[in-house]
Amino acid sequence: LPDEFSVIERFFAPLATARGALGLKDDVALLAPDRAKPLVLTTDAVIEGVDFFPSDPADLVARKALRVNLSDLAAKGATPLGYLLTLALRRDVSPAWLKRFTAGLAEDQRKYRLALYGGDLSSTRGPITIAITAFGRPTGVPVLRGGAKLGDLVFTTGTIGDSGAGLAALKAGQKAPALIERYRLPQPRMQFGARLPALASASLDVSDGLLADLGHLAQESGVRIDLEAFRIPLSGALKKYWGQSLSTICRAVSAGDDYEIAFTAPRRRLAAIERTAGATKTRVSVIGKVIAGSGVRLLDREGRAVRLNRRGWRHF
Amino acid sequence: LPDEFSVIERFFAPLATARGALGLKDDVALLAPDRAKPLVLTTDAVIEGVDFFPSDPADLVARKALRVNLSDLAAKGATPLGYLLTLALRRDVSPAWLKRFTAGLAEDQRKYRLALYGGDLSSTRGPITIAITAFGRPTGVPVLRGGAKLGDLVFTTGTIGDSGAGLAALKAGQKAPALIERYRLPQPRMQFGARLPALASASLDVSDGLLADLGHLAQESGVRIDLEAFRIPLSGALKKYWGQSLSTICRAVSAGDDYEIAFTAPRRRLAAIERTAGATKTRVSVIGKVIAGSGVRLLDREGRAVRLNRRGWRHF
Repeated sequence: LPDEFSVIERFFAPLATARGALGLKDDVALLAPDRAKPLVLTTDAVIEGVDFFPSDPADLVARKALRVNLSDLAAKGATPLGYLLTLALRRDVSPAWLKRFTAGLAEDQRKYRLALYGGDLSSTRGPITIAITAFGRPTGVPVLRGGAKLGDLVFTTGTIGDSGAGLAALKAGQKAPALIERYRLPQPRMQFGARLPALASASLDVSDGLLADLGHLAQESGVRIDLEAFRIPLSGALKKYWGQSLSTICRAVSAGDDYEIAFTAPRRRLAAIERTAGATKTRVSVIGKVIAGSGVRLLDREGRAVRLNRRGWRHF
Repeated sequence: LPDEFSVIERFFAPLATARGALGLKDDVALLAPDRAKPLVLTTDAVIEGVDFFPSDPADLVARKALRVNLSDLAAKGATPLGYLLTLALRRDVSPAWLKRFTAGLAEDQRKYRLALYGGDLSSTRGPITIAITAFGRPTGVPVLRGGAKLGDLVFTTGTIGDSGAGLAALKAGQKAPALIERYRLPQPRMQFGARLPALASASLDVSDGLLADLGHLAQESGVRIDLEAFRIPLSGALKKYWGQSLSTICRAVSAGDDYEIAFTAPRRRLAAIERTAGATKTRVSVIGKVIAGSGVRLLDREGRAVRLNRRGWRHF
C-alpha cells in the first residue's frame, strides 16, 4: 500500500464532496453555522472479527459502518449531513480492498445524501477498526429516549430478528441469503425517521436487541413497557429459518443489530403514523403499550409474562 | 470487567458534563445552534503499539489521545467545546486501568474546558484503539493551510524534536525524562492558538514533522518555504541528548509528534505576535520565510540547502 497521503488523495478525497470538508487537505472540517437547529452527533465503531467477518466484502463493511451511525440519526428524527472516518488498517490491506471499501462509502453517500468531512488513517497490527462519527440536523425537536408517556403505544419499524438469524446462519455455514443480507447491510429507516419529531414521544434504534433497547427507553422515561409477543413483526425469511413459535420470538427480540426504529407515540397519532408509514413505504407495527412501572415485559397470547434468560445482546 | 452499560455509567457518565451530552443516556449528542460561528471538527486515533506503549500509564494515554485532537483545533484558531470517544478495549482490561484512563480525561477536560459528549465502547482482540472526534468554535475566521503569502514570515511555537527524541530514548531504554514526557504528553498551544485568527495567514499543528507539515502548508498555499536550520528552536534537554549540530536539527524537523503550531504571518504582524507570545507565555520563533516556488528547503548558516533523506515521519 502506498503512503497515507497518497491513499487519502486517491481513495478518500473524492468522497469529500462537501465544501466544509476542505478537500481533506486541512486538519479540520468546517460546518457552517445554523441559526435554529442543533447539531445531532453520534459515533459508532465496527471491528473486524466482532462486527464483521474478515471475509465480508469491503463495500458492505463500509456501508454497514456508515449505516449503523445513520440509524442513530434517523431514530432521533435527524437527516444526515456528513461524517468523519477513523480507519485503522493493517499494512497488508490491498488497494483493491480500499477501492471496494470507498466505493461502498460513495454508494451510500449518494443514497443518503451526505459527505465525508474528514478522517484519520492509521496502521494497526490488530483487526481492521472503523470508527465513524456522523452528524446531522433534526427535522423538528429531536426525539429522545425519555419522552414515553403512560398510555402511549409502542411501535417498531420493519421486522425484528432477521439480522440475528443472519449472523447465526453465517456462523453455522447455512444458506439464508435474505437474513445474511440483513446482517451485513442494515437498512436504516431514514425517511420514516425524519418524520418522527411530529409523531413520536420517545424513540431509539434497535441495535442491542428490541427488548434491551426498549428497556433503556422505559428506564429513561420512567415507565414500564408491555410487549405482545405475537405482535412482534417477523419476516417470511425468519419464519422459514427459525419457525414462528414463542421461542423464535424470544430469540428475535434478544438478537440485536436490527437497526429498526422502536418508538412510542400517543394513541391519537395512530392514523398519522399509518399515513406516514404508507408515504415512506415503511412497515410499522404496534407491538405494545406504555404503562406505569418499570422494565419491559413480553406477554404471550394469554397475557402471561414470558421469562427470558438474557435480555438482548450485549456488545461488551 | 462488568458489562458495557455499567462501564459507561460508572466511568464515563461523570465525564459527560455538558447538557447536550444527555448524560450519555441517549444514542446521540446535541449541540446547540450557533448563529455566527462555524463548527470546527477534527478526528484522530491513537493505537496501542503504534502511538503509545502498552506499559504507558493509562491517564497519559487518555490525555495524549485527547490532546492530539485539541492541537488541531488550536492550530486553526478554535477553542474546544467537546469530544466523542470511540474506545476499543480488550476484555482483560481492568477497572483500575479504566479508572486511571478516565481520571486522565477528567483532568484534561478541566484544564481545557471541554466535555465528553458521547461515545462507543467495543471489545477487540487487538490493540487498544482510541478514536476521538473533537469539536470547537473558532475565535475568528479559522486559519487554514492555504493562506500563506509571498513575503510572510514562518513561525513555530515551542521547541521542535523533543517528542521524537523522547520516543528514541524510550525505544533505547535511555533516561531522558523531559523528552519522554514530551512524547507521552503533548502540550497543545490552546491559548496562543486562540489568538491566531487575528495574526496568522496560514497555520497547522506539527504532527508529521515540521518539514513534512510545512510542506503541506506550502503546497496548499502554492508557495515555497525556506527555513533557516539554526533558527529551529531546540530545547536544552534535546541539545543535551542529541547535541546541536546540523544533523540534530535534521532529525528534529523530521521527527514528528511535536504538537506545536507552525504558522505564517505578514512581517507587519511581528510585534503583535511577540506581544501575544508574551501574554500567553508561549515561546514563538521566526524560523523562515515564504517565497515564490514550491516545497520546503532547510538552509544552513551559509544559505545552502540541506539534503534530507526523508521528509518527516509518516504514519502509514
